[in-house]
Amino acid sequence: MGNTYMDDSYALHTDLYQINMTQTYWEDNIHNKMAVFEVYFRKLPFNSGYAIFAGLEKIVHYIENFRFSHSDIEYLREQIGYAEDYLAYLENMRFTGQIRCMKEGELVFANEPILRVEAPLGQAQIIETAILNIINYQTLVATKASRIKQVIGEEAAMEFGTRRAQEMDAALWGARASYLAGFDSTSNVRAGKIFGIPVSGTHAHSMIQAYKDEYTAFYKYATSHKDCVFLVDTYDTLRSGIPNAIKVANELGKRINFIGIRLDSGDLAYLSKEARKMLDEAGYPNAKIVASNDLDEYTIINLKQQGAKIDVWGIGTKLITAFDQPALGAVYKMVSIEGESGNMIDTIKISSNPEKVSTPGLKRVYRIINSVNLHSEGDYIAMENENPQTEEKLKLFHPVHTFLSKFVTDFNAVDLHEDIFISGQLVYELPHIEQIREFSKGNLSVLWPEYLRALNPEEYPVDLSQACWDNKMKNIQEATNKVKEMLRTR
Amino acid sequence: MGNTYMDDSYALHTDLYQINMTQTYWEDNIHNKMAVFEVYFRKLPFNSGYAIFAGLEKIVHYIENFRFSHSDIEYLREQIGYAEDYLAYLENMRFTGQIRCMKEGELVFANEPILRVEAPLGQAQIIETAILNIINYQTLVATKASRIKQVIGEEAAMEFGTRRAQEMDAALWGARASYLAGFDSTSNVRAGKIFGIPVSGTHAHSMIQAYKDEYTAFYKYATSHKDCVFLVDTYDTLRSGIPNAIKVANELGKRINFIGIRLDSGDLAYLSKEARKMLDEAGYPNAKIVASNDLDEYTIINLKQQGAKIDVWGIGTKLITAFDQPALGAVYKMVSIEGESGNMIDTIKISSNPEKVSTPGLKRVYRIINSVNLHSEGDYIAMENENPQTEEKLKLFHPVHTFLSKFVTDFNAVDLHEDIFISGQLVYELPHIEQIREFSKGNLSVLWPEYLRALNPEEYPVDLSQACWDNKMKNIQEATNKVKEMLRTR
Repeated sequence: MGNTYMDDSYALHTDLYQINMTQTYWEDNIHNKMAVFEVYFRKLPFNSGYAIFAGLEKIVHYIENFRFSHSDIEYLREQIGYAEDYLAYLENMRFTGQIRCMKEGELVFANEPILRVEAPLGQAQIIETAILNIINYQTLVATKASRIKQVIGEEAAMEFGTRRAQEMDAALWGARASYLAGFDSTSNVRAGKIFGIPVSGTHAHSMIQAYKDEYTAFYKYATSHKDCVFLVDTYDTLRSGIPNAIKVANELGKRINFIGIRLDSGDLAYLSKEARKMLDEAGYPNAKIVASNDLDEYTIINLKQQGAKIDVWGIGTKLITAFDQPALGAVYKMVSIEGESGNMIDTIKISSNPEKVSTPGLKRVYRIINSVNLHSEGDYIAMENENPQTEEKLKLFHPVHTFLSKFVTDFNAVDLHEDIFISGQLVYELPHIEQIREFSKGNLSVLWPEYLRALNPEEYPVDLSQACWDNKMKNIQEATNKVKEMLRTR
Repeated sequence: MGNTYMDDSYALHTDLYQINMTQTYWEDNIHNKMAVFEVYFRKLPFNSGYAIFAGLEKIVHYIENFRFSHSDIEYLREQIGYAEDYLAYLENMRFTGQIRCMKEGELVFANEPILRVEAPLGQAQIIETAILNIINYQTLVATKASRIKQVIGEEAAMEFGTRRAQEMDAALWGARASYLAGFDSTSNVRAGKIFGIPVSGTHAHSMIQAYKDEYTAFYKYATSHKDCVFLVDTYDTLRSGIPNAIKVANELGKRINFIGIRLDSGDLAYLSKEARKMLDEAGYPNAKIVASNDLDEYTIINLKQQGAKIDVWGIGTKLITAFDQPALGAVYKMVSIEGESGNMIDTIKISSNPEKVSTPGLKRVYRIINSVNLHSEGDYIAMENENPQTEEKLKLFHPVHTFLSKFVTDFNAVDLHEDIFISGQLVYELPHIEQIREFSKGNLSVLWPEYLRALNPEEYPVDLSQACWDNKMKNIQEATNKVKEMLRTR
């Protein structure tokens, strides 16, 4: 919207430097060298013990539709001034590589590959920005939603953050991410339509203001909707809102389903307890109390601890913007590239921040499930040609504090990646959102509760295989030697 | 993207409760009553002394294209189950009302109307969510960008947050909001194409990794691009990156423009000072130092205070997500509605949080410019029929602490709103982005520096006229009396 190009594409949804670098590859004729990039984040958001991956469905659409449109090429020609031969290469660019990725709803932890691209260097470079943009936001919101749902428990959780979302796509895809991670509905009608998510919502303060008084507004709403939840805080929750709701429920009796009331301001702990008493005394013990007002996992823990009588939780701003940490720092790092003779050469990025040093080489990530208790022992990152399942006794050791180690014997090593694209062809069937939601729910039961709790969770082990660790150390040594060599020969 | 409906529209980009309330209006036949809603926020974000309004261009597109598509109506029929007569009403709904709004780039403060909708109740209700969604994000980022640009000063500011943005729309519209508020370029190529914003960017770590060593990568880049900024922190900034950059600059001489280097990690204060020395000693006193790495107004103030030698600032995550406050709480409140006899009746929302009480009635907002020093004395919210310009001596008083007051005599009262839509027709010509940027820059010069500073700014006066204040008190009294009345008669 706000876009006058009829043939606009998302191919230009990238950083200019990607197109500039690819120009160098093109002119140097290395644009078709195979390159391998991995996506991962270095730190779990919200001090969480786990994250929930989301974003694959949109990435699949992006890759399948990837092509520079006529107006894209025109822009690059007229405004940036690239040469014609390079523009012709871009115009013909389609994704021809391979993508392996975790399934949406999968548990994911710091420093493990979420998604892996193996593709001609030029292609792999240009798609970086969009892939990160999609994964960073959707995974962030899915994780926040899962954390909130964990503290809510069996009660219903409604997402209604659209008005505070960071623009329209965030509202739409954030609604989806929340639902797949355990929320029960969204208020965003378009998300309901596009993704088949349940939608919910009743009325706002403006409807009360549209009538001469609150009673009339409730009455009118009730005569046009069978299911009624009345918002009771427009004028005075306890003295006006709840009494009017009860009055309308009494008058209309069985002609409506008096589902309950919604509190949207004030002291929710106190008001919900008072409301519960008033509803019970009026003969409505099954009427539910819905609460909203800048809630998140911390305020919910607090309200529950105070004995608040809340049955349904409406969550907006804090969820849809991931308020306490609005960005996930997932990165896209080259781990291998084709050498002169067609062999693959591992690559590394060194940094003066040790946690920013990348782990070289083609890798796989396995979840090591204990066959006796069916809980996870940790995740295990191995080189592509390793198969941990064949080992009788698997050694898991901390990748930094290597003396922290344990042996696992009776285990199942589950490869967390699926093939998504092979030779540019989609080979993965996108699951229905309900399947993703079930999958996500099931995954949580594999974790010990120590990793799931909202506050101060234990650190879940994400370990490198011995071969992977050795390879990383070798690459660090080589990179350091190269710098020393350069200093010597200058 | 990820949307299989060819005829999808943004009409369903709303909360379900808007459509439910409108159903009540429809069934009660009050959907065509004229209603007036105002958009405002209650608190400036980031403890800022001011905000910059953005979002109008997208709102214009949204309103102009507003209609429920066939598939929208199908969804509402099949999945929600609305009655046919109501669906027919929705299907024919077009915006036929009036919108007055501030210009993009305008200075805006807490509790003043940014945008005003006067329209048939049903229409005004359904467009609420999208309008808030657009204004909340774009205004937030424009404000953050302006704050950052204020501390950067005359040096260049580049936005490159796309990969960390909250999904694609945020990256696109956030790039635009940053530019109109004073940034100099974006990395997002699609934003460059759609809005005509300058784009910038050179290369990333992956290009270094794609070659056998850093020197070769710089050399290859330089032979394919005349303008060169080398990213120097892939292996070792001072021992490898900068020496290699200088070596390539020396070798290629006048064949390239050695614009400078980019630092992306480590201690930017120390590294930039060392880099400056190395570049100067090598004979490149004009080579610029670009810095990036989670920068915002606070880190920039700090770096400048340490004497960092940085010429160009690259800003990503902290800007595009408005990291330290990722949501602006703009609301959309009914201030007036048509009564039984066609007269307009003011409406109010009371709250136990006094700052949440709305200000009733049709209003206008004026900026009171001192004719002598050309600085602003404050903003003045008056009733629709008032004209402060006709007053010889204007009394400005604090709307809460009313004893705080001053008289202004020699002033110009500037109406901050423009007519955008009249009877559903667009009557406003959207300015070019460069005009908005100039306008925004000029506005800042109207404020005393005390309101502009990033830390602990003074509170800018936003005052109500006496008539407006009296009307608010009267409405509060009436609403309170109504509650008391109800209690008496129960």
